[in-house]
Amino acid sequence: MFREKIKVLDCTIRDGGLINNHHFTDEFVRATYKALSEAGIDYMEMGYRSSRTFAPEADYGPWKYCDDEKISQIIDGIESDTKISIMVDAHRVKEQQFRPVDESPVDMIRVATYVKDIDKAIAMLNIAHDLGYETTVNIMATSVEVEKDLVESLDQLAKTPVDVVYVVDSYGYFYCEQIEYMVKLYRDHLPPEKEIGIHCHNNQQLAFSNTIEAIIHNANYVDGSLYGIGRGAGNCPLELVMGFLKNPKFSLTPVLKIIEDYMIPMLKNIEWGYLIPYMVTGILNRHPRSAISVRKTEDKDKYAEFYEKMRDTFD
Amino acid sequence: MFREKIKVLDCTIRDGGLINNHHFTDEFVRATYKALSEAGIDYMEMGYRSSRTFAPEADYGPWKYCDDEKISQIIDGIESDTKISIMVDAHRVKEQQFRPVDESPVDMIRVATYVKDIDKAIAMLNIAHDLGYETTVNIMATSVEVEKDLVESLDQLAKTPVDVVYVVDSYGYFYCEQIEYMVKLYRDHLPPEKEIGIHCHNNQQLAFSNTIEAIIHNANYVDGSLYGIGRGAGNCPLELVMGFLKNPKFSLTPVLKIIEDYMIPMLKNIEWGYLIPYMVTGILNRHPRSAISVRKTEDKDKYAEFYEKMRDTFD
Repeated sequence: MFREKIKVLDCTIRDGGLINNHHFTDEFVRATYKALSEAGIDYMEMGYRSSRTFAPEADYGPWKYCDDEKISQIIDGIESDTKISIMVDAHRVKEQQFRPVDESPVDMIRVATYVKDIDKAIAMLNIAHDLGYETTVNIMATSVEVEKDLVESLDQLAKTPVDVVYVVDSYGYFYCEQIEYMVKLYRDHLPPEKEIGIHCHNNQQLAFSNTIEAIIHNANYVDGSLYGIGRGAGNCPLELVMGFLKNPKFSLTPVLKIIEDYMIPMLKNIEWGYLIPYMVTGILNRHPRSAISVRKTEDKDKYAEFYEKMRDTFD
Repeated sequence: MFREKIKVLDCTIRDGGLINNHHFTDEFVRATYKALSEAGIDYMEMGYRSSRTFAPEADYGPWKYCDDEKISQIIDGIESDTKISIMVDAHRVKEQQFRPVDESPVDMIRVATYVKDIDKAIAMLNIAHDLGYETTVNIMATSVEVEKDLVESLDQLAKTPVDVVYVVDSYGYFYCEQIEYMVKLYRDHLPPEKEIGIHCHNNQQLAFSNTIEAIIHNANYVDGSLYGIGRGAGNCPLELVMGFLKNPKFSLTPVLKIIEDYMIPMLKNIEWGYLIPYMVTGILNRHPRSAISVRKTEDKDKYAEFYEKMRDTFD
């Protein structure tokens, strides 16, 4: 069952940060890094490297910027083989700076992009690659992209030095046959030395099974998060991925411990996971923003009304 | 996408009854029947037809017995094409009585059995069949049965008048490849006129995806429940099955309405769904009883300790 090439990336702090404007405490981020290191997880994503011009500091916590100094302070003194990744949005680039990789605690830069911004993404990944970082491009919202345009992006990426290209089911719309189709499409258009990654959302409780499906079709980079934390319905639960992969280097105990110590208490203050409004946007192949909005109102549990409104209107 | 032969069975009252000793109110059962009827669901399972000798009335609510009179009273006056099913445990049979089908509100009798009790199950299904009922046999705990014994049971069932044989993942252990294997195994050993059913548990958030997998491999009887209610981690959420199947006769609104009106408030009093102790028994392929027990103690969220104890001991 265990395939050594599979690398697991935890995106708890990064995707979870979308719920609380990246305001996780240093204590929690450090505890997460320690737990993931003990658990044998390959990568931990710390957050976004965002421009302070686009994202003013008054509005966000430190994991919106992921300054090298901040990361170094968090991981200081913890023994670890876990690499560090950060994410950059290709469509929100301004004055972000990257040091050469050997002067930074960061190992990998992941560029999130829509198909329309693929040229910006490629420019960004070239900079990161030239500075010595491992690189990925995560093509978001693939379930609403025109396939011809997506294929053109893949053909462009095939000619770049990018290490991994991710299938991202941003809306939690895909089921297994569509994941299989996408992973094979990526495989067909990318040279064999480039790996394929998978990042799923849990709107239809399919994040874990779709991750398995992608693994079966040879995706080797797999995103998960603690107890599935992430925007809206959240991500693929890391603990389930570990149970499935059965890599002997994994230890589940530290992951279960941090879930009990931090994630369960956190659910009293912030919300994620399978909830009907997210299921509705998922089955309708829509951005979760309307579901996130309704969950902040007193109509948050008026599911039938929300469904009929979403079904009968368009973004 | 829509395949007319697929029949959806809601097991809210039956499997959900395992959490509260079958004490659902008449009001809720009637509201469920009304909602499922409006939604176009094919079958509603009312509960068990248990022996009052084995299961004394002091300990259980009415849905442990599903007397014909009780069912008739609940459904009286509601326009519906939804058929009624009840379940019988083959290994707990005593003086249960069944009237001929045309004197009963029940349409289908489902016999739940372990492989070891298959002869009792066959005796029961023959009685039910001779009285005119549709019949199913639901072979439980298939993930811990010896395959040779399971195959022998299937070969025996092939010679009976049973209409549907269910693959049941009682422990929530299977992922897609195992479901595919099981459904094909059943198909190989059953004559083509017999249908295959699928009943999944959600310990690893795979109940819905495994149901899809079974459908892909031609299972045509599909169990779901409102918001996934059921013992432990619960079942495949009915609302997700409906979103996937896209049968034009379905209406999602009444199902979402009953979830908002009854299921969300109910979660304050009884518990089901994805919780780490159930995930642990799922990945270890164990009966959920230890997880159910620990959730009733003050150690209910000591996940790491529970995992290590379960991993290192055997039932």
